[in-house]
Amino acid sequence: MDKSVFRTLSYGMYVLATRNGDKYSGCIVNTVFQLTSEPPLIGVSVSKDNYTHDLIMKERVFTASVISENTPVAVINTFGFRTGRKADKFENVTYKILPSNLPYITEKTCGWLECEVLETVDLPTHTVFISKVLDSGVLDLETPMTYAYYHHVIKGNAPKNAPTHLKPDVPDPTRPANENEKPVDEVKPKEKRTAYVCSVCGHIYDGDVPFEELPKDWICPTCGEGKENFVLKEI
Amino acid sequence: MDKSVFRTLSYGMYVLATRNGDKYSGCIVNTVFQLTSEPPLIGVSVSKDNYTHDLIMKERVFTASVISENTPVAVINTFGFRTGRKADKFENVTYKILPSNLPYITEKTCGWLECEVLETVDLPTHTVFISKVLDSGVLDLETPMTYAYYHHVIKGNAPKNAPTHLKPDVPDPTRPANENEKPVDEVKPKEKRTAYVCSVCGHIYDGDVPFEELPKDWICPTCGEGKENFVLKEI
Repeated sequence: MDKSVFRTLSYGMYVLATRNGDKYSGCIVNTVFQLTSEPPLIGVSVSKDNYTHDLIMKERVFTASVISENTPVAVINTFGFRTGRKADKFENVTYKILPSNLPYITEKTCGWLECEVLETVDLPTHTVFISKVLDSGVLDLETPMTYAYYHHVIKGNAPKNAPTHLKPDVPDPTRPANENEKPVDEVKPKEKRTAYVCSVCGHIYDGDVPFEELPKDWICPTCGEGKENFVLKEI
Repeated sequence: MDKSVFRTLSYGMYVLATRNGDKYSGCIVNTVFQLTSEPPLIGVSVSKDNYTHDLIMKERVFTASVISENTPVAVINTFGFRTGRKADKFENVTYKILPSNLPYITEKTCGWLECEVLETVDLPTHTVFISKVLDSGVLDLETPMTYAYYHHVIKGNAPKNAPTHLKPDVPDPTRPANENEKPVDEVKPKEKRTAYVCSVCGHIYDGDVPFEELPKDWICPTCGEGKENFVLKEI
């Protein structure tokens, strides 16, 4: 099996969000897909490790906000790599609340879907939520972000518990559109260097203080995980 | 509900294919999505109207070939709009056969996945096949085709039985990347004209013989459906 073919499947990027008493929680997913047109049904695969997964199992309702190419990367990092068990992910993002007390993200997102779970498919590591779209809205006139754009242009990675996570040594047979357009002689090999890289979210440490001298309770500014998750590697 | 938000969800384009005795059949789908990474499981939503649907229900195995931006449009039209009940869709495309006697398309496709159905989710108009990836391969170094590329650049539409089908009057809030790059003063409004358009596949008749004078048994060169499906409209 050549797993690199999985890198050629196309996805969008979405913030899945639900309520938790008087608070909200959410996570980034890339596997939101329409299943039928009439009635409008969607499916979404969510890791069982995920706090939002447990909340959706309980609440049976959620929203999906469609991330655009202009949605700040900080939104993706907050919802993609921090856990809602520890942090209030909604603290630093702008959002609105539906009459059903469900939040959707308004940071240059294309639109939102309000969904009710009809059926769950229990898989080894994930649950697929087969859901009815109850309501939906369009927000900004923006180009939706594809996972390919996130991976190639923003240089982002899928977290370890994403359905589409692949180990970094699985090669990527696709080419980003912006590299395709460059004449061959303009593509120079990058100079390699070593740096401390967060093994949780891929954050590359480039602070002024040498990494070794950072305090023990220093945390990754992207995902909030501890210093012990950083490894020295070639980038 | 604002259904135009459905146009902001991102998908790839795939040929789903399976065996039928000593023949093969297949169809175009855009809802192939990875559900778990380990084991590698995928889901795909297929219309119950589709001949390939019935064959997959019987055979419980299929392939998904990943269409690239350079896959000939004729391949998409053949697998997307003709029915395998009437036509041998493999007649005019190049493909290879796996040891399991399943075909995959080799016309500038990015790669293929060989899948076994583990579970089916029965929805009103479609079945979702929850499937294990048994084997996979990478073919050409091509950019995978997204549904957005098909819709905006190739000007293709989803067939009526696609999970993502929307009526033509649902506006499209997304903008194609190539239009975004043009300075505003270069974007000129298109001159409108009327033409006979196939209501099944969207083919625009532009032959030398006036449409009215075509023989009664003339069929659409794209989808093979009859002359009676053409309607005169503004394009």
